[in-house]
Amino acid sequence: MVKNTLMERTRKGELDPVLEFVARTEQVPLEQIATGIKTGTIVIPGNPLHRSCSPRGIGQGLRTKVNANIGMAEGLSSVETETQKMNIAVAAGADAIMDLSTGGNVLGMIQNLIPDCPVPFGTVPIYQAAVGARESRGSIVEMSAEDMFAAVAEQAAAGVDFMTIHAGVTGETLRLLEQHTRIADVVSRGGAFMLAWMLFHQKENPFYEHFDRVLDIARRYEITVSLGDALRPGAVADATDRLQVQELLTLGGLVDRCRRAGVQCLVEGPGHVPLHQITANIVLQKQLCGNAPFYVLGPLVTDVAPGYDHITSAIGGAIAASAGADFLCYVTPAEHLGLPNAEQVKEGVIASRIAAHAADLAKGVPKAWEWDREMAAARKALDWPRQQELALDPDVFPPYLESRLEEGECSMCGPFCAMKVISQAMGGKKVTC
Amino acid sequence: MVKNTLMERTRKGELDPVLEFVARTEQVPLEQIATGIKTGTIVIPGNPLHRSCSPRGIGQGLRTKVNANIGMAEGLSSVETETQKMNIAVAAGADAIMDLSTGGNVLGMIQNLIPDCPVPFGTVPIYQAAVGARESRGSIVEMSAEDMFAAVAEQAAAGVDFMTIHAGVTGETLRLLEQHTRIADVVSRGGAFMLAWMLFHQKENPFYEHFDRVLDIARRYEITVSLGDALRPGAVADATDRLQVQELLTLGGLVDRCRRAGVQCLVEGPGHVPLHQITANIVLQKQLCGNAPFYVLGPLVTDVAPGYDHITSAIGGAIAASAGADFLCYVTPAEHLGLPNAEQVKEGVIASRIAAHAADLAKGVPKAWEWDREMAAARKALDWPRQQELALDPDVFPPYLESRLEEGECSMCGPFCAMKVISQAMGGKKVTC
Repeated sequence: MVKNTLMERTRKGELDPVLEFVARTEQVPLEQIATGIKTGTIVIPGNPLHRSCSPRGIGQGLRTKVNANIGMAEGLSSVETETQKMNIAVAAGADAIMDLSTGGNVLGMIQNLIPDCPVPFGTVPIYQAAVGARESRGSIVEMSAEDMFAAVAEQAAAGVDFMTIHAGVTGETLRLLEQHTRIADVVSRGGAFMLAWMLFHQKENPFYEHFDRVLDIARRYEITVSLGDALRPGAVADATDRLQVQELLTLGGLVDRCRRAGVQCLVEGPGHVPLHQITANIVLQKQLCGNAPFYVLGPLVTDVAPGYDHITSAIGGAIAASAGADFLCYVTPAEHLGLPNAEQVKEGVIASRIAAHAADLAKGVPKAWEWDREMAAARKALDWPRQQELALDPDVFPPYLESRLEEGECSMCGPFCAMKVISQAMGGKKVTC
Repeated sequence: MVKNTLMERTRKGELDPVLEFVARTEQVPLEQIATGIKTGTIVIPGNPLHRSCSPRGIGQGLRTKVNANIGMAEGLSSVETETQKMNIAVAAGADAIMDLSTGGNVLGMIQNLIPDCPVPFGTVPIYQAAVGARESRGSIVEMSAEDMFAAVAEQAAAGVDFMTIHAGVTGETLRLLEQHTRIADVVSRGGAFMLAWMLFHQKENPFYEHFDRVLDIARRYEITVSLGDALRPGAVADATDRLQVQELLTLGGLVDRCRRAGVQCLVEGPGHVPLHQITANIVLQKQLCGNAPFYVLGPLVTDVAPGYDHITSAIGGAIAASAGADFLCYVTPAEHLGLPNAEQVKEGVIASRIAAHAADLAKGVPKAWEWDREMAAARKALDWPRQQELALDPDVFPPYLESRLEEGECSMCGPFCAMKVISQAMGGKKVTC
C-alpha cells in the first residue's frame, strides 16, 4: 500500500520517475509537471498494482487526452469481446480505458482486463454495488452504503487507476430536481442509481457524507478520484442550468478536500451543451474547481443526430479542449442507440482524437503543429506512402491507393491536380494536363 | 432573359414570390428578406431557366445552408452515378448541389442534371473551358479568355443558378506566390487553372480584368456569382496568411461591383484553418465584404485525418457558421483521397448538416431549438418511434430497434436505464431493476 501519495511525495520535493516520463513524452519541463502535480492542475493516474500501465499526464499545458469506454451489458457481451474492444481502442490511440460493465461479474471483468491494459484504467464502482444488489436482493436500490464502499475498495485492490465517484449530489439536489425544470432530468447512470437510492432510503449520499472514507481508500491505492457529474445535462436545452451548476459548486469543494488529503482528482463535466455555451462551461469549471483537470463527455452540440454522436461530440470536444478541457471521453456512433461494436469503438476513438488534436493546434502544442506541417508537406509532394504513415488512421489508405494513383495523382482530381498544375506552372514548365 | 434582376426589382419595392416563399420557410418577416436582398446580405440563387428549383435563401439571419459537390472525373464515373449521388445528397438534406465534373462532356453533364435538381445548382465554369482546351489543344493552359466567358454563358443558358468565378487572383498574387511562403501553395483546382493560365500567357486574369462581362451574363440569367477563393489555405499552417487576405480584399471590391450591377453574390472562404483562427476569419470576411453571405469549404481544423475529413470539417463548419458563415460546402470522408461514392456523399451531407444545425442552435434559430426539444422529450419518454422520426438520419435506427428493445429500454444500458430509474424513483415507485 502507498505510504505517501504522489502528490505528497512531489510536495516534499521527491521527483517520481513517472513525472520525468510524462515531462519527456509531453516535451515540457519537469518543473512544470511537478508544479502541476503539487497544485493539482495535473494528474498522473497510476495505481501501483496496475503494473502494465504506461503513465499519462492529464491537465493544464499538456496534450489533450482521450478515454474510451468499454463494458459488458447484461447478457450482451463477454470478457473476450470487451478485451477486443479495449485492444482496438488502445491501438487507435486511446489514452485511457474505462470499464462501464453493468452485467455479469463486474469485478471479475475488471480483474480480467487490467493486467492487459497498457494505459490508465477507470471504473464506476457504484455499478458493481448496484448490479450486486439487484442479483442478491432484487433491486439496485437495495444496495447498502457498505456495498458502495466495498466496491471502491475491491476495485482499488484490483488495480484500478481512476474511479468515478458521484459525490456531488445531495439532499438539496433532490429538492431542486423535484421542481422538474429539466426535459431530461438525470441521464448519468451512476447518478440515477445514487439519487434513486437516496430517495428510496431517504438518506444523504454516502459518498458525500463519508467522503473521507473514499479519500482513505484513494490514498491507500493512489487512486485518482474522478468527481462524477450526476446531473450532467442530457439535452442541450438543459445545459448550464441550476442543477448542473449547483453540483459543480459542490464538486469544487470536494476538489479542495482531495487536495488537502494528497489525493489526485479530476472533475467530470457535460454532456449535451449547445456550441455557444461550451467555453463558458469550461471557464466556470476551471474557476470553481481550482483549475482541476476537466474530463468531459462530449459535449454533444445537438440532440438530433443519433447514429452520428461521435461527430456531434467531436465538435463539442474540440471547442471544449481548446478552451481548456483536458480529457475527452469518447462518444461512439452507437450512443443513444446501443452498445458500440468493435468498429464503432475505433470510430469513437478516432473522432475524439481529431477533436483533441484540433484543440492542441489551437492551444499551440508544438508537437501538434509539427505533425500537421509534415502532413501538409507530404501532400504538396504528392508523397502517398508518407501521407499514409502520418495519417491519424493509416488503414483508410489501401482501397484508394489500389484503385487509382498514377504518377502521384489522387483519384479526386486525377490529372487535374491543383498541386501538380501549380508546381509545373510556377516551375516554368508546361502544364502536362 | 431577365430584364431587371431580383436585387433591382426588390430595390424598386417589388416583392417577388420567392421572397415570400423564403420568408415563410425560414419563419422570418418578409421585410427582413427584402432588406437582405436589397443590401446583398441575403441571396436567393435562382436562374429562371432552372424551373425545378425550390428556392433557398442564404445569408444573415437565416438557417445555415449546406452544399454537396458531385461530379465526374475523367473516365471514373457517369451521368447515372452522378445523378444517383445528387439524389442521395438531396434526400439527405443538401440545400444546394454543385457539379465539379472535370471529365467527359462537362456541359452535357450539367444539362443532364439540372432539370432533375430540386435545389439551387452551382458550377465552376473554368473547368469546362480547361477540359475543353485539353481535349482540343492538348493542355488546360491552351484555353483562351473567350473559352472562359463562353463556358460561363453556356452554363448560364443551361440553367445554372450560381457559379464560382475565380476573379480575385491577379498579377500581384503571382508576385506574392513566388515568394513561396506557403507549404501548400494553391489547392483550389479552378484557382490553379487560372494562375497557370496567367503564368503561361503572361496576362492578367480575364475574369478580373473583364469582370463586367461576367456581370453582364449574370444579369441576363439571374446568376448568383460565387466569388471563388483561389488562394484558400490547403494546410492549417497556411491559414490567414497574406495571400489569403490579399485575395479577400480584392473579393470585397468585387462584391461592391456585383451589388452596383444588381447581381447577387456570395464570397467563398477556407479551407484548412486551425480552430482558434476560424472566428477571426469570419469577422474579417464580413467586414471586408460588406456582410456578403460567406460560403466556406470546411474549414478543416487539421491536416492529419484523411478518411475523416467530414469530421474535421464538421468541427470547423460548426464554429464558422456559429460565427456567421452562412453556407457550408460539405466535405466527404473521401476528401484528400479520391472521389466520394454514394455512401460517402450521404455521410458528408449529414456531417455538414450537423455542423449547420449546431450553429443554428448557437445562433438561436427558433426552429432549431424546437427540434432538439422534441428529440429530448422523446428520449425522456423512451419513445423510440418518435426518436426515429425526429432523427437527422432515421436510417440508423432499424438495426438497433430489431436487436434489443424491451419495454422501451435501449441496448446501451439495458435494464439499468437512467431515464427509467429516475422516473420510477421520483414518481415514488420502487425501481424495477
